Amino acid sequence: MRALVFHGPGQFSWDTVPDPAIQQPTDAIVRVDTTTICGTDLHILKGDVPEVRPGTVLGHEAVGVITETGDAVGSFQAGDRVLVSCISGCGRCRYCREGAYGQCLSGGGWILGHLVDGTQAEYVRVPFADLSLHKLPDEVPSEQAILLSDILPTAYEVGVLNGRVTPGDTVVIVGAGPIGLAAVATARLYSPGRIVAVDLAQSRLDAAKRLGADDVVQAEEDVEGFVRGITGGLGADVVMEAVGVPQSFELCTRIVRPGGHVANIGVHGKPAALHLEDLWIKNLTITTGLVDTSSTPALLRMLAAGRLPAAELTTHTFALDAMEEAYDVFSRAAETGALKVVINRS
Amino acid sequence: MRALVFHGPGQFSWDTVPDPAIQQPTDAIVRVDTTTICGTDLHILKGDVPEVRPGTVLGHEAVGVITETGDAVGSFQAGDRVLVSCISGCGRCRYCREGAYGQCLSGGGWILGHLVDGTQAEYVRVPFADLSLHKLPDEVPSEQAILLSDILPTAYEVGVLNGRVTPGDTVVIVGAGPIGLAAVATARLYSPGRIVAVDLAQSRLDAAKRLGADDVVQAEEDVEGFVRGITGGLGADVVMEAVGVPQSFELCTRIVRPGGHVANIGVHGKPAALHLEDLWIKNLTITTGLVDTSSTPALLRMLAAGRLPAAELTTHTFALDAMEEAYDVFSRAAETGALKVVINRS
Repeated sequence: MRALVFHGPGQFSWDTVPDPAIQQPTDAIVRVDTTTICGTDLHILKGDVPEVRPGTVLGHEAVGVITETGDAVGSFQAGDRVLVSCISGCGRCRYCREGAYGQCLSGGGWILGHLVDGTQAEYVRVPFADLSLHKLPDEVPSEQAILLSDILPTAYEVGVLNGRVTPGDTVVIVGAGPIGLAAVATARLYSPGRIVAVDLAQSRLDAAKRLGADDVVQAEEDVEGFVRGITGGLGADVVMEAVGVPQSFELCTRIVRPGGHVANIGVHGKPAALHLEDLWIKNLTITTGLVDTSSTPALLRMLAAGRLPAAELTTHTFALDAMEEAYDVFSRAAETGALKVVINRS
Repeated sequence: MRALVFHGPGQFSWDTVPDPAIQQPTDAIVRVDTTTICGTDLHILKGDVPEVRPGTVLGHEAVGVITETGDAVGSFQAGDRVLVSCISGCGRCRYCREGAYGQCLSGGGWILGHLVDGTQAEYVRVPFADLSLHKLPDEVPSEQAILLSDILPTAYEVGVLNGRVTPGDTVVIVGAGPIGLAAVATARLYSPGRIVAVDLAQSRLDAAKRLGADDVVQAEEDVEGFVRGITGGLGADVVMEAVGVPQSFELCTRIVRPGGHVANIGVHGKPAALHLEDLWIKNLTITTGLVDTSSTPALLRMLAAGRLPAAELTTHTFALDAMEEAYDVFSRAAETGALKVVINRS
């Protein structure tokens, strides 16, 4: 089959590789009908995720149809149309039993396109299929369902739930890429008083406005002054980091109010300075997190009911064999205006 | 009167200063019968708390008797034996209404021995007396009550409650000075499975054992290896920082398990490195905090009922005019074995 293979930092190509096969009785093979590219894939290409070995097929998001299941798979069968979650869970370890599938101790967690071959391919082997796939209702279109593989549950769990957004809150989201925009959309579920989106790219700030941000601020402007201005000098109740660089994390810790929450969603490759000399006294709560995808079934029900503005998050569509072009457009987002790109089997 | 006056980093003396007087109708004047020295006072002397102006009387902990009240004080009168809390609250601002007195927006919070003259003196003016004092039952001795001014509520709120200690948890407390020891004692209220105390000084590790630590580890040993060893390689559920230096904070973030909590209690003068390149994926919750003292009434009831091992936290007693000697003994704790020192009016 054809697949997008990582060859080390900065290097990847659309190669011919062997078809995946069942390796464990808990595996399923899924024919990929729709996939996408994540900001995390760009972090991998930058070298920020050094445990990804050259030769790995990238991608951790897909919608497709099961072609084969291992003997121990109980909830799915060949022919089922499924969402492939970015997180796989054994379902049995301490963390999986608490719904913390992202921290699975038995070989699950975020493995697709990370520790095993991923979804930017014609077929993908999905380990722990029973807890890594979700059956899709016919009425949910694939180009919307694909957003449930990662960005919607990530923004919701790691941003909105970890940040404990509460009705009336002033919420600042630093970074309005697909994850930041999904955070804008899912923060609204908790009726904040005001959502502020911060980004360098005007196209992303425009998208944030469409998705429900009340204010947008260009990242090179005086973000700190703006936030103090609208909060009586206090700072925001909740600040989410959706970029993944030290400067934006440090900005978050400067614009949060005493007693507020900083929810880090970004994938980082470097340490940040934590200014404890200022922050020790401020009653902050700072969270980090990989998504668990424990919210995916609920988000899927909301998507099926038309309660999530998923269509707004997607800007470009490509055919599977135009994967390299899709990477090019996605990685030059400031120029191309790309948000989420949808890649369909022809 | 006589008082311990800060004269800039490294400099203080036991001086004659004017007696305090009522300045606001919400003030009370308290004759100090018992006071103590806090690790925070040493941080001030190190220069870690630069907003303390030379000329300030230090100290934010006291037990005494009210000699005078302003016209607006409703809950207390002259002659009442009271605890002076390290935190003053206006009771009216947004934060005070939520019980977050430490973040009071109207001139309260931690002000004694910080922004106004403090308690290491013969008399102290206590602003916002109604919300800054607590009436003491006769049966609670002053040398135990004094621990409720700061260290017991701080360790409990900023360490145990922020760290969300839960029955069965493995709890590591880095730093076994008075605050760390108070954290050992109050963590036990939530029935953790195992408490590990870490410190450089053997006398403090011995005290931690007496207060209920299950294990003690000398800080120069392989703390990380020890914690991994007792947690199946995972790390601790809750780690508290009770030192206030970057190295110990960074240690805390290395020995916490995925999904665990790091509760910073220490007063810091420098930034720490937050290794987001490792931590972004670990679902950590990191909290900082100044105490609110909202727990003080409950802790006082527990102390009166004999449910807190307060006597174990005190090692030395001095007369008020031996304050400089008390500082000397307290600041050389590794050598003198000092924990909390009690300073009584003669």
